[in-house]
Amino acid sequence: MDNLLERIDSPEDLKKLNINQLPQLCAELRQFITESCSRNPGHLGASLGAVELTVALHYVYDAPKDKIIWDVGHQAYAHKILTGRRKSFSKNRCYKGLSGFPKITESPYDTFGTGHSSTSISAALGFATAAELRKSNEKTVAVIGDGSMTAGLAYEGLNNAGGRLADMLIVLNDNKMAIEPNVGGLHNSLLKLTTSRRYNKLKVKTWTALGSGALRDTVQRMVQAGKRLVVRHSTLFQPLGIRYFGPVDGHDVVQLVNTFNRLKKLKGPRLLHILTIKGKGYAPAELDQPTWHAPGLFDAQTGNRISDQDPEIPRKIRFQDVFGHTLLELARSNPDIVGITPAMPSGCSMNIMMAEMPERCFDVGIAEQHAVTFSAGLAAAGFLPYCNIYSSFMQRAYDSVIHDVAVQKLKVIFCLDRGGLVGEDGATHHGVFDLAYFNCIPEMFVAAPMDEVELRNMLYSAQDKKYKTTSIRYPRGTGVGMKDWRRPFQFMEPGKARLLHEGIDMALLSLGAAGIMGAQAVARAAEQGIAVQHYDMRFLKPVDRDVLDYVARTFKKVITLEDGCLIGGLNSTVSTYMANHPGAISKVTGLGVPDRFIEQGKTRQLYRECGYDTDSITEAILTLAQTF
Amino acid sequence: MDNLLERIDSPEDLKKLNINQLPQLCAELRQFITESCSRNPGHLGASLGAVELTVALHYVYDAPKDKIIWDVGHQAYAHKILTGRRKSFSKNRCYKGLSGFPKITESPYDTFGTGHSSTSISAALGFATAAELRKSNEKTVAVIGDGSMTAGLAYEGLNNAGGRLADMLIVLNDNKMAIEPNVGGLHNSLLKLTTSRRYNKLKVKTWTALGSGALRDTVQRMVQAGKRLVVRHSTLFQPLGIRYFGPVDGHDVVQLVNTFNRLKKLKGPRLLHILTIKGKGYAPAELDQPTWHAPGLFDAQTGNRISDQDPEIPRKIRFQDVFGHTLLELARSNPDIVGITPAMPSGCSMNIMMAEMPERCFDVGIAEQHAVTFSAGLAAAGFLPYCNIYSSFMQRAYDSVIHDVAVQKLKVIFCLDRGGLVGEDGATHHGVFDLAYFNCIPEMFVAAPMDEVELRNMLYSAQDKKYKTTSIRYPRGTGVGMKDWRRPFQFMEPGKARLLHEGIDMALLSLGAAGIMGAQAVARAAEQGIAVQHYDMRFLKPVDRDVLDYVARTFKKVITLEDGCLIGGLNSTVSTYMANHPGAISKVTGLGVPDRFIEQGKTRQLYRECGYDTDSITEAILTLAQTF
Repeated sequence: MDNLLERIDSPEDLKKLNINQLPQLCAELRQFITESCSRNPGHLGASLGAVELTVALHYVYDAPKDKIIWDVGHQAYAHKILTGRRKSFSKNRCYKGLSGFPKITESPYDTFGTGHSSTSISAALGFATAAELRKSNEKTVAVIGDGSMTAGLAYEGLNNAGGRLADMLIVLNDNKMAIEPNVGGLHNSLLKLTTSRRYNKLKVKTWTALGSGALRDTVQRMVQAGKRLVVRHSTLFQPLGIRYFGPVDGHDVVQLVNTFNRLKKLKGPRLLHILTIKGKGYAPAELDQPTWHAPGLFDAQTGNRISDQDPEIPRKIRFQDVFGHTLLELARSNPDIVGITPAMPSGCSMNIMMAEMPERCFDVGIAEQHAVTFSAGLAAAGFLPYCNIYSSFMQRAYDSVIHDVAVQKLKVIFCLDRGGLVGEDGATHHGVFDLAYFNCIPEMFVAAPMDEVELRNMLYSAQDKKYKTTSIRYPRGTGVGMKDWRRPFQFMEPGKARLLHEGIDMALLSLGAAGIMGAQAVARAAEQGIAVQHYDMRFLKPVDRDVLDYVARTFKKVITLEDGCLIGGLNSTVSTYMANHPGAISKVTGLGVPDRFIEQGKTRQLYRECGYDTDSITEAILTLAQTF
Repeated sequence: MDNLLERIDSPEDLKKLNINQLPQLCAELRQFITESCSRNPGHLGASLGAVELTVALHYVYDAPKDKIIWDVGHQAYAHKILTGRRKSFSKNRCYKGLSGFPKITESPYDTFGTGHSSTSISAALGFATAAELRKSNEKTVAVIGDGSMTAGLAYEGLNNAGGRLADMLIVLNDNKMAIEPNVGGLHNSLLKLTTSRRYNKLKVKTWTALGSGALRDTVQRMVQAGKRLVVRHSTLFQPLGIRYFGPVDGHDVVQLVNTFNRLKKLKGPRLLHILTIKGKGYAPAELDQPTWHAPGLFDAQTGNRISDQDPEIPRKIRFQDVFGHTLLELARSNPDIVGITPAMPSGCSMNIMMAEMPERCFDVGIAEQHAVTFSAGLAAAGFLPYCNIYSSFMQRAYDSVIHDVAVQKLKVIFCLDRGGLVGEDGATHHGVFDLAYFNCIPEMFVAAPMDEVELRNMLYSAQDKKYKTTSIRYPRGTGVGMKDWRRPFQFMEPGKARLLHEGIDMALLSLGAAGIMGAQAVARAAEQGIAVQHYDMRFLKPVDRDVLDYVARTFKKVITLEDGCLIGGLNSTVSTYMANHPGAISKVTGLGVPDRFIEQGKTRQLYRECGYDTDSITEAILTLAQTF
């Protein structure tokens, strides 16, 4: 049989196929994605689940004139492949390669970029409104997963779209999963609906009838027959003014094409509920969906995952696992501790505590604002919440941190995983702003451990009355690889730095795990005869004013180092101190993320690009040593 | 008749009354609130609408053991008065007086502080969960308005409460209004429900039946009779796992008491929908609800509002009206301009444009994240959105600004009203963080006009290709009072400061309207022989590096002045520049909001407290002049 996929360089090519050829194309796409991801890691599960949906959308709608807007974007690999990026897909998520997400600048078919969840409905409403204002007839389609539906932004978009009677289609791609199994009242409701016997009988009738083309009449008749309870009222969409259709099988591409063709003729805000299976068509991925959300390297034939770790090197522990194990230890001895995560129990390793004390851990779904305000409620009721949110997702909960926690001087320990540059997920996921956006909030401490033991001791110490609400941020992946990280807890005084290396030529003030690269550079500089006084600052706030005072009076040359944006974080804090200090002799050089968005790549490539990998820091030290 | 209110210093006193005395108490409370607000301005309308609700809640529940959590808090005046603050209520919203909102530190009855909308369900779920973990039997009640229901956070809370089957009662206080009439699909749905004849017939039957005490049975019977469509399915709550009851008349205090007594005995997440009238019982307030949301001073007898403006002084124009009139002017000549506001059309004066071109203005309800992402969609579709959000509410949309606008280099003009200290609304409403939290975002400009003409010219200039996505922030209230503010537009180069006053003794760099106080101080200092070089910086980002370079080389003494937090804004930017500049001789003194939360008061009192009213700036200049 001919390979169809090889002929397709754009949706126009796709439209030349006969509808009966689409199942074959879907099979080819699935194989292409699986093989490609086996060699070049990516988000396999979601994209396999959306193959038929993607083919059907591009077969029916005329992108880029019609607007197809993906939510999150993990599921958009088939979309990328069908829209001219089949050949470049081997560089998906690579440095200077394709973004792992839709991206406006990458293709005209990427109508609206994404990465975080739940933005698609609001963005689509923007496009639909623009079409309305221009009286143009382009169609707008938002594709959103059931996991993304738990976030408030999706609801705000739905409510506004329904209220304004916007002309748009929302495809609810329901696979019962976010990265992990989905939670919440809506989820339970969808589940009840799609598994009920009554519904399944109705479904057959409905979609047989729809097959005859008389969609409006059918719906009307069903309403009159009193069945609208199931068809239109059993979810939350109807009360918001959104017409609900479905659910249908999201892996029957022919039925999807026919359905879209009919829905395209309707007006107003409408939602099609499709049922899909995450990892569809690749057995290992179907069987263990959380693992195969983004499985890393694997053997496509056997389904065996391949470690990219050299087996000779003992495996380093990840920062997130230090968090997970330590939280459980602390919770065992402190009954006030509770854990809160928005949909990331294994992503942040809170599942370690969850396994032993499920009643004290709360996965609230993709709902960062709620995670924080719920934590504030628990704190006001006397508990000590450890609320773990990835740094870039914490941006969603910014007001909740200020308004519900800090203003009230409630104590919540914010554990910010994925702080700093995260690598292949790129610009939307780099956790580079948290140091800056928390620095300006009163009644908060901002801490960043350099290594596994510091993370452990900060988590421990933060319980103490000396600590206010504290953000503890640490990077994705592994640290320096301390073998004895699980040593007895030591109390860490808030606002106290530690001296790592003595020197007279200049001072290096580092914050967080970037200090590891800093220490390596200091050692190399020492070999060249340059003596650097290196402090691990530990706390951006309260900053160690004793150390700053000493540095200000002692060192003309000061370098700050942080895995975060230069504006607003350590560099700003140290510089402001120096500029305000009457006796300061220091001039400050900042190493960190410059004032632009950084794309995807391996972290070492990105550190290099930003000028704070070990080589760059060494160069900065040596260059500065030569100035007066 | 005895005055009942005078006897009540706590809910215990309230509980001593006979249920038949409660209507009289409500009338007294209403009169007390009206008279008090007529002399000392406050949020009259919402509080009048919640009198019966408040009395019934405190009559039935045992606060502070039981937890009553108010949303927004505008409506909590009766709560404050009944919980020991009747006498101090004359100092409501005053400097060193009562907060206008519930506040944890003010009273044990203020379970959870607030100010921003839509937090109550999440916070209440925290308390309910705490009770569950402790196996205590305290009850949890969240009181939320229909306006607050449009924000995503409320939905996130509902979804989690319903999914977890939390034991809590949510009272939906439905008055069809936020500050302005409510919008959105949910609102339409609630409206349809409560105005339908079918419902109204049902309501009588339901609540007569409930009166007999057989609540469960009744609901059960209604369900079986097929009427659950109306009673339980007509809103979005049931699909989220929340049992829905109501609606009932929120001004029938006896019925409310009976209803709460019955609902108290049920378990699980449940919602009571009550219908109230904003401004209830005070005719002028009922008739014009937006005006009487917070009417200022008025004559309680006649209902005439009293201007606190000296009639001899010509009325100054408010910054928000400069925005409103200018936006309309710009929109007339630029067809790409659209206006977006989350529920503040008259609060931000976008109603001026709305009146002339309603199709190009979008009030999206209380939904800041959506407002920004919707704007991003419009921008991606080729429009130029002017999105007006109060500074402190913009905190809610922080991720949307980063992820949907800045990352994609889309151009949205953010108009931040209420930037800086806002006065009587206090800590939750001061717009003091925006300069800092926007400063660190790449691909953004951050501007702050000093006066009416600068605001006007910035709004005009921001259309130009030289401008990226730009935040233009300006304060609440009036500016310097320029009479000829509506002069022809002048293009303002981005990143260019202007020199206001020449001097050799020191430099003053001010940002935004605080520069008015700065200029007054500079004039006073000149009278004392101190010559200050005063720059109106206009832009925090891009900052005028030419000016900074000149200042760095020329002035040993530099003062920065901003109506925002010192950390992360102008002081940080200037200090960082100086600390990094090899030739800088400057030491920098920062005037602005210190690193703590500022409470309520008149802005002049708060500027004074923070050290940047005209007197304080003058003192700072004179003091600095005496140092070496």
